[in-house]
Formats: sequence, C-alpha cells, structure tokens
Amino acid sequence: MSMPSFNVGILGATGAVGQTFIRLLEDHPWFTVTALAASERSAGKPYREAANWLSGKRMPDAVAELEVTTTEPSEMDCDFVFSGLSSSVAGDVEKAFAEAGFPVISNAKNYRMQEDVPLLIPEVNADHARLVENQDWGSDGFIVTNPNCSTVGLVCALRPLVDAFGVEKVQVTMLQALSGAGYPGVSSLDALGNVIPYIGGEEDKLATEPRKILGQLENGEIRPADMVVSAQCNRVPVRQGHLACISVACTEPVNVTDVTDALESYRSPLTSEDLPSVPDAFLRVMDEVDAPQPLRHVKNGNGMTVSIGRIQECPVNHVKFVALSHNTIRGAAGGAVLNAELLARDGYLSA
Amino acid sequence: MSMPSFNVGILGATGAVGQTFIRLLEDHPWFTVTALAASERSAGKPYREAANWLSGKRMPDAVAELEVTTTEPSEMDCDFVFSGLSSSVAGDVEKAFAEAGFPVISNAKNYRMQEDVPLLIPEVNADHARLVENQDWGSDGFIVTNPNCSTVGLVCALRPLVDAFGVEKVQVTMLQALSGAGYPGVSSLDALGNVIPYIGGEEDKLATEPRKILGQLENGEIRPADMVVSAQCNRVPVRQGHLACISVACTEPVNVTDVTDALESYRSPLTSEDLPSVPDAFLRVMDEVDAPQPLRHVKNGNGMTVSIGRIQECPVNHVKFVALSHNTIRGAAGGAVLNAELLARDGYLSA
Amino acid sequence: MSMPSFNVGILGATGAVGQTFIRLLEDHPWFTVTALAASERSAGKPYREAANWLSGKRMPDAVAELEVTTTEPSEMDCDFVFSGLSSSVAGDVEKAFAEAGFPVISNAKNYRMQEDVPLLIPEVNADHARLVENQDWGSDGFIVTNPNCSTVGLVCALRPLVDAFGVEKVQVTMLQALSGAGYPGVSSLDALGNVIPYIGGEEDKLATEPRKILGQLENGEIRPADMVVSAQCNRVPVRQGHLACISVACTEPVNVTDVTDALESYRSPLTSEDLPSVPDAFLRVMDEVDAPQPLRHVKNGNGMTVSIGRIQECPVNHVKFVALSHNTIRGAAGGAVLNAELLARDGYLSA
Amino acid sequence: MSMPSFNVGILGATGAVGQTFIRLLEDHPWFTVTALAASERSAGKPYREAANWLSGKRMPDAVAELEVTTTEPSEMDCDFVFSGLSSSVAGDVEKAFAEAGFPVISNAKNYRMQEDVPLLIPEVNADHARLVENQDWGSDGFIVTNPNCSTVGLVCALRPLVDAFGVEKVQVTMLQALSGAGYPGVSSLDALGNVIPYIGGEEDKLATEPRKILGQLENGEIRPADMVVSAQCNRVPVRQGHLACISVACTEPVNVTDVTDALESYRSPLTSEDLPSVPDAFLRVMDEVDAPQPLRHVKNGNGMTVSIGRIQECPVNHVKFVALSHNTIRGAAGGAVLNAELLARDGYLSA
Repeated sequence: MSMPSFNVGILGATGAVGQTFIRLLEDHPWFTVTALAASERSAGKPYREAANWLSGKRMPDAVAELEVTTTEPSEMDCDFVFSGLSSSVAGDVEKAFAEAGFPVISNAKNYRMQEDVPLLIPEVNADHARLVENQDWGSDGFIVTNPNCSTVGLVCALRPLVDAFGVEKVQVTMLQALSGAGYPGVSSLDALGNVIPYIGGEEDKLATEPRKILGQLENGEIRPADMVVSAQCNRVPVRQGHLACISVACTEPVNVTDVTDALESYRSPLTSEDLPSVPDAFLRVMDEVDAPQPLRHVKNGNGMTVSIGRIQECPVNHVKFVALSHNTIRGAAGGAVLNAELLARDGYLSA
Repeated sequence: MSMPSFNVGILGATGAVGQTFIRLLEDHPWFTVTALAASERSAGKPYREAANWLSGKRMPDAVAELEVTTTEPSEMDCDFVFSGLSSSVAGDVEKAFAEAGFPVISNAKNYRMQEDVPLLIPEVNADHARLVENQDWGSDGFIVTNPNCSTVGLVCALRPLVDAFGVEKVQVTMLQALSGAGYPGVSSLDALGNVIPYIGGEEDKLATEPRKILGQLENGEIRPADMVVSAQCNRVPVRQGHLACISVACTEPVNVTDVTDALESYRSPLTSEDLPSVPDAFLRVMDEVDAPQPLRHVKNGNGMTVSIGRIQECPVNHVKFVALSHNTIRGAAGGAVLNAELLARDGYLSA
Repeated sequence: MSMPSFNVGILGATGAVGQTFIRLLEDHPWFTVTALAASERSAGKPYREAANWLSGKRMPDAVAELEVTTTEPSEMDCDFVFSGLSSSVAGDVEKAFAEAGFPVISNAKNYRMQEDVPLLIPEVNADHARLVENQDWGSDGFIVTNPNCSTVGLVCALRPLVDAFGVEKVQVTMLQALSGAGYPGVSSLDALGNVIPYIGGEEDKLATEPRKILGQLENGEIRPADMVVSAQCNRVPVRQGHLACISVACTEPVNVTDVTDALESYRSPLTSEDLPSVPDAFLRVMDEVDAPQPLRHVKNGNGMTVSIGRIQECPVNHVKFVALSHNTIRGAAGGAVLNAELLARDGYLSA
Repeated sequence: MSMPSFNVGILGATGAVGQTFIRLLEDHPWFTVTALAASERSAGKPYREAANWLSGKRMPDAVAELEVTTTEPSEMDCDFVFSGLSSSVAGDVEKAFAEAGFPVISNAKNYRMQEDVPLLIPEVNADHARLVENQDWGSDGFIVTNPNCSTVGLVCALRPLVDAFGVEKVQVTMLQALSGAGYPGVSSLDALGNVIPYIGGEEDKLATEPRKILGQLENGEIRPADMVVSAQCNRVPVRQGHLACISVACTEPVNVTDVTDALESYRSPLTSEDLPSVPDAFLRVMDEVDAPQPLRHVKNGNGMTVSIGRIQECPVNHVKFVALSHNTIRGAAGGAVLNAELLARDGYLSA
C-alpha cells in the first residue's frame, strides 16, 4: 500500500532492544530512524561511539553518525518513538513523551496492564488498537505496548483454539533464552550448563497478559478472557528463542486432530500486503518428531512466525504441544515494529 | 549393621552406567566388584584397556586389572549382578542370568513393567521387593529394577503428597540432562545452545512407571496408583541433573503451606544406618528463590537427595514446584546400588 | 561474465558437507544440482527422505525430490561432481569418477598432497589449477582439492606476508569449531564446557598443506614454500569458525605497521565479477580490541572472508595476530564451489 | 608438623575469590577464619546475608554467622589477612593493613611486580619469600603475592625445564576459563558458543611475571630470568581450568624424551608433610592422546596439580606441549593459602 514516510525516534537506543530496533528498521519501507535517545552517559556522542554494538552484522551507516540525545521530548525530531527503555525509567519517560504529543510504541512493561493502553499483537487483537482513543495525556500523544517476550508465543498459539473451541485452562512451562534478560544479563557462570528455574516477574505476566490480549473489546473496554494460566519459567542456555511446553483444556473436549486442524487452518487477518513485517506464516505447524528447536527454527518467518510441534493428547487437560517464538524479534522489537505498522495503516500516526 | 561381604558382577561394565557403578562401588562397605562383562569386542581385555574411562577421577586400581568377560552366566564369578546393559540386549541377557540363578539388579527398562518384577525405590516402596517371590525363572534367580531416570525425581517428590493428601493429576515438564542419553549420546551440534523437545519413549515411561511405583501391594500383586501423569520431555544442554516442573492436583484442595509441610516433614523409612547409600536427606526443600539448579545442587546428598524448590499455588491444579534429581546417580547406578543394599539387608541376597 | 549452465553432481550428498554444498548451490548462477549420490543405505530414496537435514533453513525444493543414487559414475548424470565424501571412501570413489572422465572437485583429504593434484584457493594460488594438465586417469577426468578447514584461514592470512616479506616460521594454535568434526561428530558430553587439546591428523595437515599451497609452480611442478609451520590444535565448544592464534617470523624483521599495511592493502586477484562466490573482502582487518570472535564475525563475507585482528609485536618471532575463518564455508563446501568457479571460468569444465 | 593455630581474616570476603578462600579454609589444620571484610554495603551483616554464595556446597556454618566488617585494620581481629580484593581497591587497602602490622597474603595484582614483594609459588621459588625482609611499612607488616591465574600453570611447567636445560623463548596461547573473570564476569551472551581473543592486561602479565618468578635471588634482590615470553590470551566457554598451549626453545637443543624425562622426574622441594596444601603430584604428565582436558582433569590434586600432556617436537622452537591448571585454586585462592602455609612454617607469621 502507499504510505508516507515516517521519521522515527528510538528511546533506549544503545541497549539490546534498541539495537534490534535499529537492525529491523535498516531497510524499512515506511520508517526512517532520525532520532536516538539514551542515558546521560551516551548523550552528545555519535551512535557508533555510544553503543557497544552486539550484532555480528555491521551497524547501519545512516545510524552510526546520528548524535545520541537525552530522553527529552524536546530533543527528538521525529513523528513517533519506539521505546526500548528498561522498566526502571520507562514509566516517567514514556509519560513525558505521550504528554508532549508523541505516539509511543513501547516494549516496556510499565503501561501494559493499564486499562486504556492496548497490549497489541496485530494478528491477534488488532481491534484493541482503538483503546488509544480512550487515552488522555493532554495532547495527541498515546502509548501502545507489545506483550512480554514469553507471553507472545503462547498467545499466538492460543488464538486459533480460543476461536474454535474456547480455552479454559492453560498450563505452561517456559524454557527461555538468555537474550531475554538483555545485555549483559545473565552471568556466564550462572548460565553455562545450567538451568535457572526462576525469572523475576515472568510467571505473573504469563498469568495476566494473555487474559487481556485475548479479551473482548466491548463498549470501548476490554473484558478479559475467562481463562486461567499457570506458568513456570526457566532460563536455559540458549541464545534466542523461548520454547513453551503448553497443556490446554478447552471449553469442550478436543483431540489432537481438532487442534492440529485449527492451528493449521488458521489464517491471520493480516498479510504482508497489509503490513510489511507480517510473516508469510503466522503459525507454522511442524511434523518432525523433535521440532521445533530454538537453534534450528527460531528464524522461521524472519523471527516473526511462531512454530508449533509435538501436538499430543494430554490425559490431564485435553491436548499438549510446544510453541517456539523469537524473543527479541516477535517477542520484542519486531512485535513493536509490527504494532507501529498497524497504527500507521489505520491512521493513528501522522508523518 | 553387620553384613557379609558380597562379590558383585557388572553387566555392561564399559558403558556410561557401568562406569558409574564402578565409581560408586569403589569403597562400598558391603560390595566388592569381582566380575565385569561387556560385549565381545571388550571380552578378554583388562578393564583399563576395554573401557573409554569418562570420569575425571582415576579408574579404581582394583578394577583396572580385572579381565572383562562376555555376558555369559558361566563366565561371571559373583554373588549377584548389576545390569547397566542397553535395552537392546538387556532382555535376553538378564533373563539368562536370572535363569542361571543370579539376582539381577537392573537399570534397564525391559522388565520394569512386568507384573512380578519390583520397580523399586527403597525409600518409596520398599515393600514391593517382596514381588521377587512371585518370580519363577526355574532357579533361585530374580530381577529387580529401578525406574527411568526422569521418573525418579518425580516419584520421590510425590510420595509425601500421596501419603498426606492423595494425588489425582500430575502435569510435568522435564528438562533433562545430556548424560541421560549415555555416551556418546547427543551430538554436540544438536545440544550446544539448543533444546530438543523430544526424548524417545520418555513421556510414556513417566505416564506409567509412577503408577506402579506408588501402587499398593495387595495379595502379592500391585494395584497401580489411581492418578494420571502427563509429561513433556526436553533435552537441555546440562551435564547432570533432571529438573522437573511439576503441577499437582490432590484428592482434596491443598495449598502451599500444606505441601511445604508435607515435603519438609517427610521422613524416609530408611536411614544410612540401615543402608549405606541412603542420603542424610531424602528430600531437601530449598528456600532460595532460584533453587534448585542442576549445576549447583545436583550433588546434594552425594547425588541421592532430591532437591525441591519454588513451591507455589497453581491456579489450574493445586500446587506447582520444581524437583531436581541426579540422573546418573539417584536415577541410575546409585538407585540400583541402593536397591541391592535393601535386598541384602532383607535377606534376598546370599554371599 | 557469460557462462553456460553446468549440471552438477554431489558425492556424499547426505552428509554435513554434502548438505552445505546443496545450500550454497541453491541459487547459484552457473551450477544446477542434478545428481546426488550417497551410501547404499540412502540409494533409491528421494533426498528429502534420505537426508537428516541439519540446517534450520528449508531444504531446497528442487533437490528434495531428486532420487539419491549410489556413488557409481554410471549413475550420475552431470558435467562434474563435488565430493563431500569422508576420507575412508573418497580415495576409491574419486578415482573411479576421474577415470570415468569426470572433473572431481573434492573436499576430501585423500589426494591433497599428490604431486599433480592442485590444492587450491583461487585468491591464493589460482595458477596451481594448471596442475590438472599433468594428471592422467586414462580419460578427460581430473581431481582438484581444497585444503583442510584449519589450513585455509592460516594460508589466506599468510599470502600477503609471503608476498611482501617472505615468511620463515609460523607458530599457530588453533581453536576449532565442533562442526569441523562433521555430524554427529563430537559428543556433547565431551564438548560442553570443555576443550579437547587434540584433533586427529590436524597438526600434520597444518605442517604440510601450507607449504604446498604457498609453493611456486615451476616447470609444471610445485616447489614447496620454504617455511616451517608448527601447530597445536584444540576443539572448543563453538559451532562455526576456526580461530587461529598465529605468530610469524619473516625473512626480514617486520613490525606491526608493516604487517597491518600488508594485510589491509592486499587485493585479491579475483573479484565477484570474476567468480560469483568471491567475497567483497578477501581479508578483513578488524580494529576492535576483542575481534574477531567466531560467534559475531564468522559470517563476514557470507563465510568467505577471513577476519584478522589483534596484530601485535611478538617478542619471540616478529608479529602475532588472530585469524578467523568459516570452517564449513570457506574451509569446506564454499571453498570447493569457488574452485569449481575458477575451473569453469578458465575452461577446465564443459557443460 | 606441629603448628600453632592462626586466626585468619579475609579481605574481599564476599567476592568469588573470597568465597573460595572460605571453602578452602573450612577444615584447614592450621588456619581458622575469624574475620571477614568487604565493602560498605556488606558491612554489619552476617556473612550468610552479605554473600551471594556461588558454590553448590553449603556455606560453612562457622563462617555463616560471622559479621562482615569494613576493610579497616582496626576492625579485623586476626593474625594475618588473605586479600581477595579487586585491583581497583587492593592498592590502598593492602598498604593500610601492611602499615598496621598485618602480614597480607594477596591474590591481587597491585604489588606483584614491586621489587621487594615476593611473587611466590612455594614449589617454584620458595626462597623468594625472604624478600619480605626488605619491605618497610613502618611496622611488622608485609605483603606477599601469588601470580596471575594464567601465569601459574606456565611457570610450574617451566620450572623443571629451566633447571635442566635453561629456557630462552616461550610462545604460549592461553585458553582461559570464565571463572577467571570473577562473578558476574563475562556475559553469557558473549561466552556461550564463542571465543573472545582478548583478556585485558593478561598478555602483559604473562610476559613479565614468569621472568620475576623464575629469577634468581642474589644479594637480596631478584635478577629476572633471561627469557622472553610471548602470549596470546583467549576466553573460552569453560567453567574452570586454564589450558596453555606452550612452545619452548631451550638454551641447548632438547627433544621430546629430554623434556618428558625432566617433567616426569621433577620432584617438588615441598611435600604435604611440609605444607598441608601441597598436592601429591606437583606436575602430572599424562599419556592419553587427548589429555589434559579442563572438564576432566582440572581437579587433579584437588586443583593444585598442574597437568601436562601432548609433548611433541616443535619445528619452530624445540618442543611444544599443553599444561592445565585450576585457575581459582592453584591460580588464586589455593595458591595464596599455600603461600601462607610456607610463611607460617618459615616463621614469618605469628599466632
């Protein structure tokens, strides 16, 4: 589709999420990075000096020479901002930008559960974008968030089951990648050859975020989905890719064939003709007995496809299966870019 | 207790499990290794040549010079045998030894589910040992087995809950160590930085073995426990230690305090005064928010203690927690040694 | 350049090297895979069934349905063959293909040191290709080889120094990736969190192959370079990328500036206008204090660039530095493809 | 030998080195930990609260309840102190303790190269202890240091060669463990599946420390050994154990047999009858083609033995081999404890 070109700012540009934004936006057809903000320590330096560039791919030239500013609305010349800020500062900074009239497309957790803030996955609950109309920051600004990196894969896999059968109970054990903790994140002495059966706050997010995302927008408000989710979260020595071992009880009894059909036949309401970052396959159901594996399949759909496998009958609930999603693309920066694309298409952003 | 000294043979002595038997028996107060058997290829060689010794600790001198024989009953001069054979050969060989009058203490899966064969964990179901009296191999021989390495940690943790509350439903996700696959086992190209969400046959064993182990011996037969177990098994890049993420529904509603009390107050019916390999703590309930971890806690109780942590309410079932057990000690060779100790104490073995 | 299209066969198509050939040739402008051969066990099956596909990228559709044949010349319909065979069979099979008139572009070690067989790196010793004219297999066939995966990075880095200063002595410690051992290769129990200070045959290859590759072609024969190479080879838990720690004594004293200039100013005699697989940069000299790293830089130049860093004065020899090369692309299948491109351009291959 | 009991303080008690001191001293026959000091943040707390205990073994009970103090001499009630301080603070703090009359047995680098400070390995240069008599802090205090963790293995392996043949040139490539960087140290995102070919300051220490350690004490001063050492240091994803790939040129030509004999026949001048922490074998020469390996052999001699293997002729120098040492025991806390034992035996410490 024809689309004006937007100038984009990145809050938290030197961090791991910020760097992923920059990589994903390098050749973006609609968005051009024109402003970068980070902490005082980085402000005033060109980006190539301010950032400890983690990727093996070269830093995009256009960005390398941009001067990093502080996270002040008056410092950033752009149409909207992505926020890769850590939650310790995101609350205040994102509020300031919204009040100054900026659309804020945030990966931080601070506003996710606020009633009038969309917790958005375009293929799952695009209609929730309308919540921004409820926001009032005394300006044209607003905040849109994407879910926690461990929530995303689960919710994408549940969407077809909710539609087809209704879902009542979800038991999930997460095996989460190291990159989910940011950089430097987990010490190598804790990670190498080990599992850490705890990730602060993560199990709570899995209990609450899916209910909001899969909830119904009614009279301008979200009625949370009527399901319970119980999660156990582990850190495993994997670089990229959160693997979810999921067991589901539906409203009515379902079997493996029912669920496989529902997952395979589900078609995302959006395609790459609608939004550039939508993958060819929203879900990919894999037949191989030992798939999906983080190492081999995390890049399915350029990191935007959720891969599903090992669908089996569950004698405790109805069915069980595993779902793999890319935690720093679909689960963070890539999800936020997709949110911005949806908002641009639907007229919520102005160039 | 006073105990005669037994001469012990090891079937499959050159394999990973066989080597662990040798290490655990090095200074054993009751058992002395006097016979080693392996495949044709190794037969006739001294053990130090036949075995690709995997441990960093030195091979015990007494064993290094023993000549390896084939797995023929007539070749082995000992009072009973441990079997570390792979399941592809264990069926025939163990039968031959039982028929030749040997007690066979086996780690192989072949006879585990046979009605008259004990599937034994001394602290959990010592009374099942009596099943050997039902066996008839046309000799004084018999077979006793220990459970699959992933079953053990789960069952040990469930024992107090079954006793206190009754257990109806168990959902478990296993994060299993590489050593569980033997040597050479998993290719480094599959393991490093990856998770494989499949281990052949493992989920079935977790569905069936616990029901037998926790079953009641009535009129000389085992009535399986009336519970359902649903498992999802993953291979993770950890050397030693299977971590189980467990959710349990009991016969009556229970909360975190109930379960913590039951686990902490449980006392094994056996102590190290009874059997040398019984650990000080059968279970160890850990308070730290991020424990147990395979790397740090797998050696609790010299690998014989099951470590439990993160006991939480489960909104789907009643409670959830994690349990860690040493897969090659408690879950394999160490469990078998403990079984032999029980059988020796109870008079089933003759020196 | 304009080039006819060649039909290509792959010997050892199901192995790790064979699979890499297939991936690299998927969109090749000159070469089309039309024949696949492997062991008896695979023969007669479509490739998608015969191969345990290791890559996370999908198997190319065109190849998936090809029927695998045995490694008989009469079975393969193609203009030339790549050989990814293991050395245990490559000797006989490659000979049979050469005798049957096939050009054989081999990654195996068997014929590398044979006097009339080129040991070829196009950017380093393209003129050695002429050696094939000395071969006489009683047919039009011939054999061309690429070096061992650990030799390649070293030799590429030495080429500019040999040209500029002469090289007399080379001390090299290799830190080699797991993929260099093929699949399944190294056991995860040996690899994880460990270093193995031994790789069978590797140190010898590093002592001999560079002398041939960097030798002069005189009167149709190669006079080996007059240098000594001493190597110590280690296997490290890295997936891709051999890192060489190199110390060099030149014919005349040289310092860091001399060597940096020589490496930075070196221009490969071939560009991607000549051969499609030639990378933009033959060598890339990196300034960062901690580069190159296998994880981050092995894909420089799509795995065909050799990355160099940490150039320092050496108080024992003259200078020391590290060089990183991709062992399965530049060091194996990619190197062989480049060799075939050179031979095609120079008229040694017929479509 | 009969020895009074010493009360011992630990500076930097909560850090990784400090924790290793505590573990090694748990059952020490001569030394009892009575005082613990750390940063302001920890001061005033019992040790069990102040320390993030990294080991899987339980914290010794006697230490758990000690109150941590600041690093003020007046706060510590003990006969001497071990210093596990980081170099950023060790300079000032150790000076203050020496001035206050404490013997300081330090693992920090700050005073290692100061002329009158012993850089001590008891089996290598016990006579250097006498240097403390040159120190003048205006008190009875003094400072003794142990070498960098990467220096130790190299120097221990060189000692017999220096004695037997003289050593002129040493080329060494280090493959160093993650624990050498302390905790949290290296990020798991940098470490997992990677090699980092740089460790700040390490190559310089390897160039200078061995010359002092292997130097001659003449007229109360050390004349550095007349050898050059050239090092390249890499961080590899291994938990414990620095592996050194070493090539040596001696004063006279030597071959593999000469060197093997010299290493195997070398007897440390000290035994465990002299000092409790002296291992049975100072050096262990291993025959296996692929030994020593960090994972399997780092605990040789309880981490105090240096393991040597792969002795081969070197065409550039004379011989090459690999040496493995435990970086946090022999190379840090264990080496310092051994130094204290030597000083106690020789009357430099007062109870």
